[in-house]
Amino acid sequence: MIKIAVDLMGGDDAPQVVLDGIELFLKAFSDVEIQGYGLPEYNTIKHDNFKFIACSEQITMDDEPVRSVRRKKDASMVRAAEAVKLKTADACVSAGNTGALMSAGLFIVGRIKGIERPALAMTMPTIDNKGFMLLDMGANADAKPEHLIQYAKMANIYAKANRKIDNPTIGLANIGTEDKKGNTLTKETFALLKAETSINFIGNVEPKTLLNSTADIVVTDGFTGNIILKTLEGTANNIFKMLKQTLTSSTKNKLATAIIKNDLAKLKGKMDYSEYGGAVLFGVNGLVIKAHGSSDKVAIYNALRQARLAVEEDVVSTLAKEVGTDE
Amino acid sequence: MIKIAVDLMGGDDAPQVVLDGIELFLKAFSDVEIQGYGLPEYNTIKHDNFKFIACSEQITMDDEPVRSVRRKKDASMVRAAEAVKLKTADACVSAGNTGALMSAGLFIVGRIKGIERPALAMTMPTIDNKGFMLLDMGANADAKPEHLIQYAKMANIYAKANRKIDNPTIGLANIGTEDKKGNTLTKETFALLKAETSINFIGNVEPKTLLNSTADIVVTDGFTGNIILKTLEGTANNIFKMLKQTLTSSTKNKLATAIIKNDLAKLKGKMDYSEYGGAVLFGVNGLVIKAHGSSDKVAIYNALRQARLAVEEDVVSTLAKEVGTDE
Repeated sequence: MIKIAVDLMGGDDAPQVVLDGIELFLKAFSDVEIQGYGLPEYNTIKHDNFKFIACSEQITMDDEPVRSVRRKKDASMVRAAEAVKLKTADACVSAGNTGALMSAGLFIVGRIKGIERPALAMTMPTIDNKGFMLLDMGANADAKPEHLIQYAKMANIYAKANRKIDNPTIGLANIGTEDKKGNTLTKETFALLKAETSINFIGNVEPKTLLNSTADIVVTDGFTGNIILKTLEGTANNIFKMLKQTLTSSTKNKLATAIIKNDLAKLKGKMDYSEYGGAVLFGVNGLVIKAHGSSDKVAIYNALRQARLAVEEDVVSTLAKEVGTDE
Repeated sequence: MIKIAVDLMGGDDAPQVVLDGIELFLKAFSDVEIQGYGLPEYNTIKHDNFKFIACSEQITMDDEPVRSVRRKKDASMVRAAEAVKLKTADACVSAGNTGALMSAGLFIVGRIKGIERPALAMTMPTIDNKGFMLLDMGANADAKPEHLIQYAKMANIYAKANRKIDNPTIGLANIGTEDKKGNTLTKETFALLKAETSINFIGNVEPKTLLNSTADIVVTDGFTGNIILKTLEGTANNIFKMLKQTLTSSTKNKLATAIIKNDLAKLKGKMDYSEYGGAVLFGVNGLVIKAHGSSDKVAIYNALRQARLAVEEDVVSTLAKEVGTDE
């Protein structure tokens, strides 16, 4: 049975939405044991495949990442990461402080040898439903060119092994498609990616074409990746909000809307990031999955689905074998 | 009469859309003389308020900014900037190479004393129609914290003097709202903005709330600002494209769409960046307006409207008086 450790206390609406997401998941999947780490008062789920582990602390969104992981030894996130390290769980999931989860990945679970910095990788939607992998989504806000090269290599291996994409195309997120565009980081990274013969680098990709399947993989630093994610998300949410206002603004519009409602819901679902599960921390020696901080129960459910899939796909072994070195 | 110098050769679809945009503008405004700088074969507009100035060169999107501005002395963009320097024009407009236009602003028009780096400032839409000013949109890809402080001060003065906003709220674009979030640049900038008593700094702003009027002004480095702009634009365009597909996918949907068509068009217009005119290069000693590289004729028309407005508002004098120093 697959075992997934969950940080019940992480996320903007934790622990309630996390508990609700787990209940949804336990109804859908009977081959997974969920280990819930949280403060004692949240031991509310009664289910054969659920084990509650009481912790005395939690890491908040304001906590300084490295320090909090080192000091709060009994925090739910720390304990969930330890379960992966000790192999009492196959994966851990948290919607909490991204920096702290990254630190827990680094200092508790540990890096794959040869990988300097882990990166959060997520499959994002495209309008043709193919999707593309964006990384880093925010693990490492100040990245160096050599980190981005490692992100590209990890994503390349993953896309080949787990997504069965032959020779995946790799783009660099940038503010222009021309070779010399960008800031110091992207200019230096461009040169290194171009020189890297093991990957199929197709050049700079502007964020305005990200939804149009211009590349199978898009690499960027964690700050920019997170900015892209949050801009995409905010724009999509607000357009659908305005659309809803428009469609319910008059009786005639309401009548028309009744006809197209189901098709619109499908469209909205396509752009709904809660459907896309969590981001996987590539480069650590165990499966660490970050759910979005503003996750609702469906997003938690999908992050758990993502974790289950990543265990089945054995992502960590693939990366360690192909990208890791013995240093 | 207001005089606007236009680089006919700049932009992805230049010169045709630039010429078309000028014709639209000349129909709408009779108080502006347009000076068109371009290769001799594009002297096609016959209008009393249009003067054509033949140039022998043009700056392309691939040209290295500083070098091309220095070497291509007879390029249309360089000549248009010179018209501002020589005060034969009150403003210049180009949809061409952003970096080159920034260089033309710096080296031809010249900085306002005391301003280290100019920034491209643009008013962006919000769902309540209030709008907010985002800068830098891409003039300066590698910014330092002190540059962002100057951007904040310039936008603050502009919002007070020209937009009549009392005590405008200023946010820093970042990957979290918590004080310590971000990369080295945003962390250092946060501390400086917080210490700056002349402005109303409200802290970090995540891009997912940009359309919700969380701040009157949002400052960021040029790389991130351009990433935000292009992500917003790409997401909005693609959602409306998918919406159109959905609404025309069946006969019943087409019937329903006929009813709501006008309201949907209004909604789309609200998110259409071609409606928002150009970005103004804050910090140079003359009006330099950047139209979007992928401008269509309506976007060019709106950039010209923006230029006319900026002349009337006397933006440059305001900034020079309030933010500039005698070094």
